[in-house]
Amino acid sequence: MKLELYDTTLRDGTQGAGISFTEADRLRVIHALDDLGITYIEAGNFSVGSNDWEIFRRAGEISAGLKHARLVAFGSTRRVGERAFDDAALRAIAKSDVPVVAVFGKSWIYQIEEVLHTTCEENLAMIADTVSFLKTAGKEVIFDAEHFFDGYSDNPAYALRVLSAAAEAGADALVLCDTNGGMLPDIIGMTVEAVRAHLPEAKLGIHCHNDMGMAVACSLSAVLAGAVQVQGTISGIGERCGNTNLCTLIPLLQLKMGFSCVSDEQLTALTHTARFVNEVANLDFDEREPFVGGYAFTHKAGMHIDAVRKHPRTFEHIDPDRVGNSRNMLISALSGRAALREKMAAILPGLTKDSPQVAAVLARVKAAEGRGYQYEDAEASLMLLIYEALGLRRTFFAVETFKVMVGEPYSRGRGAEAEGSSCTAMIKIAVDGAEEITAAEGCGPVNALDLALRRALLRFFPQINRVRLTDYKVRVSGSDSATASVVKVFIESTDGIRVWRTVGVSADIIDASWQALLDSVEFYLLSNDLGALPQTPPKEIF
Amino acid sequence: MKLELYDTTLRDGTQGAGISFTEADRLRVIHALDDLGITYIEAGNFSVGSNDWEIFRRAGEISAGLKHARLVAFGSTRRVGERAFDDAALRAIAKSDVPVVAVFGKSWIYQIEEVLHTTCEENLAMIADTVSFLKTAGKEVIFDAEHFFDGYSDNPAYALRVLSAAAEAGADALVLCDTNGGMLPDIIGMTVEAVRAHLPEAKLGIHCHNDMGMAVACSLSAVLAGAVQVQGTISGIGERCGNTNLCTLIPLLQLKMGFSCVSDEQLTALTHTARFVNEVANLDFDEREPFVGGYAFTHKAGMHIDAVRKHPRTFEHIDPDRVGNSRNMLISALSGRAALREKMAAILPGLTKDSPQVAAVLARVKAAEGRGYQYEDAEASLMLLIYEALGLRRTFFAVETFKVMVGEPYSRGRGAEAEGSSCTAMIKIAVDGAEEITAAEGCGPVNALDLALRRALLRFFPQINRVRLTDYKVRVSGSDSATASVVKVFIESTDGIRVWRTVGVSADIIDASWQALLDSVEFYLLSNDLGALPQTPPKEIF
Repeated sequence: MKLELYDTTLRDGTQGAGISFTEADRLRVIHALDDLGITYIEAGNFSVGSNDWEIFRRAGEISAGLKHARLVAFGSTRRVGERAFDDAALRAIAKSDVPVVAVFGKSWIYQIEEVLHTTCEENLAMIADTVSFLKTAGKEVIFDAEHFFDGYSDNPAYALRVLSAAAEAGADALVLCDTNGGMLPDIIGMTVEAVRAHLPEAKLGIHCHNDMGMAVACSLSAVLAGAVQVQGTISGIGERCGNTNLCTLIPLLQLKMGFSCVSDEQLTALTHTARFVNEVANLDFDEREPFVGGYAFTHKAGMHIDAVRKHPRTFEHIDPDRVGNSRNMLISALSGRAALREKMAAILPGLTKDSPQVAAVLARVKAAEGRGYQYEDAEASLMLLIYEALGLRRTFFAVETFKVMVGEPYSRGRGAEAEGSSCTAMIKIAVDGAEEITAAEGCGPVNALDLALRRALLRFFPQINRVRLTDYKVRVSGSDSATASVVKVFIESTDGIRVWRTVGVSADIIDASWQALLDSVEFYLLSNDLGALPQTPPKEIF
Repeated sequence: MKLELYDTTLRDGTQGAGISFTEADRLRVIHALDDLGITYIEAGNFSVGSNDWEIFRRAGEISAGLKHARLVAFGSTRRVGERAFDDAALRAIAKSDVPVVAVFGKSWIYQIEEVLHTTCEENLAMIADTVSFLKTAGKEVIFDAEHFFDGYSDNPAYALRVLSAAAEAGADALVLCDTNGGMLPDIIGMTVEAVRAHLPEAKLGIHCHNDMGMAVACSLSAVLAGAVQVQGTISGIGERCGNTNLCTLIPLLQLKMGFSCVSDEQLTALTHTARFVNEVANLDFDEREPFVGGYAFTHKAGMHIDAVRKHPRTFEHIDPDRVGNSRNMLISALSGRAALREKMAAILPGLTKDSPQVAAVLARVKAAEGRGYQYEDAEASLMLLIYEALGLRRTFFAVETFKVMVGEPYSRGRGAEAEGSSCTAMIKIAVDGAEEITAAEGCGPVNALDLALRRALLRFFPQINRVRLTDYKVRVSGSDSATASVVKVFIESTDGIRVWRTVGVSADIIDASWQALLDSVEFYLLSNDLGALPQTPPKEIF
């Protein structure tokens, strides 16, 4: 049976502490979710003053670039005592090119009385009016029944009337939400069955939260009881303890329960997608995450390792390849030999898994990962290792010396609008014996170094003028130990057409940044030189 | 009904990647688990050559210091074709003062044949001999049936014979293990019921792994089917995706299902215990962890905040006090006046939503958010704004000048093991007219500035010596625009007891870092000065 997947990473996910996405981030995530085979992508909130409107304004253009997925805008029903037509947000979303609108309404009398301060009848009218208004505007409408399970426990008849009101007004799907995350799988399953009996024609969805570590179990229970749309987020990102983790639920439904969610090929993108979205959200990826975590198929006990090598089934509940993950013995490269061969064969056809070049890169990657490098979202740095193993790497320039001076004093709280530069960098490089010395000012030492380096290179490589840094992320790990922390720096660069990402790792933030910076510049020069920039980035960001 | 809690953080937990405990760590964890009310504490592995033997040698002395818990040593049955008496590890543990021994044996024929390379009859003899031997030595014996659910699915009759062999030899409890973590709750529940029907007198236990994000749901299912001993670890620490998370399972069983696990008072130690064990294990605590995470009762959406303040039940599934956690409001312009008032009234009782001080802070927060600040995960910076509005803020020191010199050149790819420092910072401060000038080297300009600033302050504020940075995060946003990007820096600090977080925003990364650094130091000095550090961090971490 085919299920609908509904991702709300970009909406409910942003309720998580510290989670926010820029517009460019949102676009990258939307394309990654489309590639994974997600049916509906909730791209943001359409309330007045929301920062997500730019996406909705561009919905037509964005939708045209999607292979399968439909964009969804999320928002509230109309206000108490008004008309849907008078609601500026509803009017604007009705006029937009967003194909699907999700509206939430209350189904728990306690909430209606204590939070909404209105009557049960007005609540029904708010839902019906809003759904009708959006259906008239030609939208596919999904109704989210907030606190449905609490409401149903409290007063089943009224909770069902709420769903009927939405269904009769034309809602295309009714989503039952366990908003507080306090329900157990058995209750969820029984309630979904009762709703099905009452509304046998309705398409039912399930939206759970993980406050008891049960969101996946609850969602599974709902699906077994007849829900056909499952809502969740990548890695369970979301408010409090998070939402249903789609990266757990999808393989569970598909590989263990025989439901059809995505194609087998799309499923192999799962691990990559999870890492990518966590990276974009600037989250530390949880390597223990089921199915997609770096430790999910990592074996430590000597006995286990021996057995799993001979007979994988003895200590592995699924084949990790099916979700794009791989078996790990202690510390090793996350992407196995087969994936690496594939990447390398795109440059040098005919390479096999046993080619020495493949082994050489794998060994380099393993050693680097042991020192803290991660190539998942820094493919340009990985490509340099590959070019090197294939004999294609060459030295474009040598850095003879650099110095950075950080200025002073800073006035407190000047905020983002502050002008001027804190840093001056001086750099001397050599290209085929010719030296160039120059300096630049920048907003911080890395920015100053970047500007100075590219200015020095300009005389020899005019094309470098098109390159600029678009993102700079710093992650510190192992910071509680008395010994030195490991600083990981990820840099994103663009030439206005393509985007590539590099990584540097060191105990020293400047050293780590400098590695990532040099990789970025070298990758650009080398890939231009080789005639074609390989498809390094997962997606262009415009 | 009273359940037995069995913690294996110190044994199965150490199969997790990067997890190890020193002997001193083990003792600290044992006492914390005892305080929590854990029934059995598996303290390590008794195989020959294990590092855990020192604990077993001191078992008598350690046990005497425990209030409730019993120490358990974990190990294998005797080897194929030998006698239990000939097994050096079994002989040694039999002689020790460890009161309880857990031995694991195989119950899946596939494993017996392919991994153990022996017969089903010899496997039964190995189990029976080992249990008898340990019972004769006066031990309480717990038998762990490895891969029990796979074995039962494959050949129920044989799997039951394995349990019977252990029971007839005198085993005090039979623990059914889902070693690969691939079983679903329904299967677990039905299997436990079948075992109960076959061995109605036996005490049954359950041991699950989280490879499908289902360990808690599976354990709950087993308990409902009659298992009375639940095995797991703190925060689910363990191999691959981890074990059953006792910090989720205990409150779930006790608060939601009506089982008795620990006393109400012990349950309030749960949040503290979770943070403590993660800290000892040197793990980044997952703030999204159900019940005990810093975000578990943290509300972000304005609407939710208003409702939860008036009627906690509307958005909280349990009272956070019951597990020693607390409600947290992420303050942002979205979250509104009510949440802010509550936070401020904790310092100055009597403030209302309309007090000018509340309005002043809200205006500051809104203006700052417009410039890119986020206070959700930087409450110490927010507290400084609140102290200021309440007239409690004061100037401790003035920075008269600083300079940072960044060294060169960096060798490429030296990796995290690189030694030495890239930066030297010089700083001059003044405190009540007295000046202090000093310098420090650091791994990057912010590290150097931090060290120099604290060294300069030491003469005036000796307590600053206890403060250190534990995390440093950089986020760049608006980076696609041609104009300057906004750099957000989040710094986490600790004095060894408490944790606090600050934020800085600027177009310049050094400026943003410097703001966050100054906020961190000022917050520490001011909150010490005010007599009590407000409850800024979600919880203490030790």
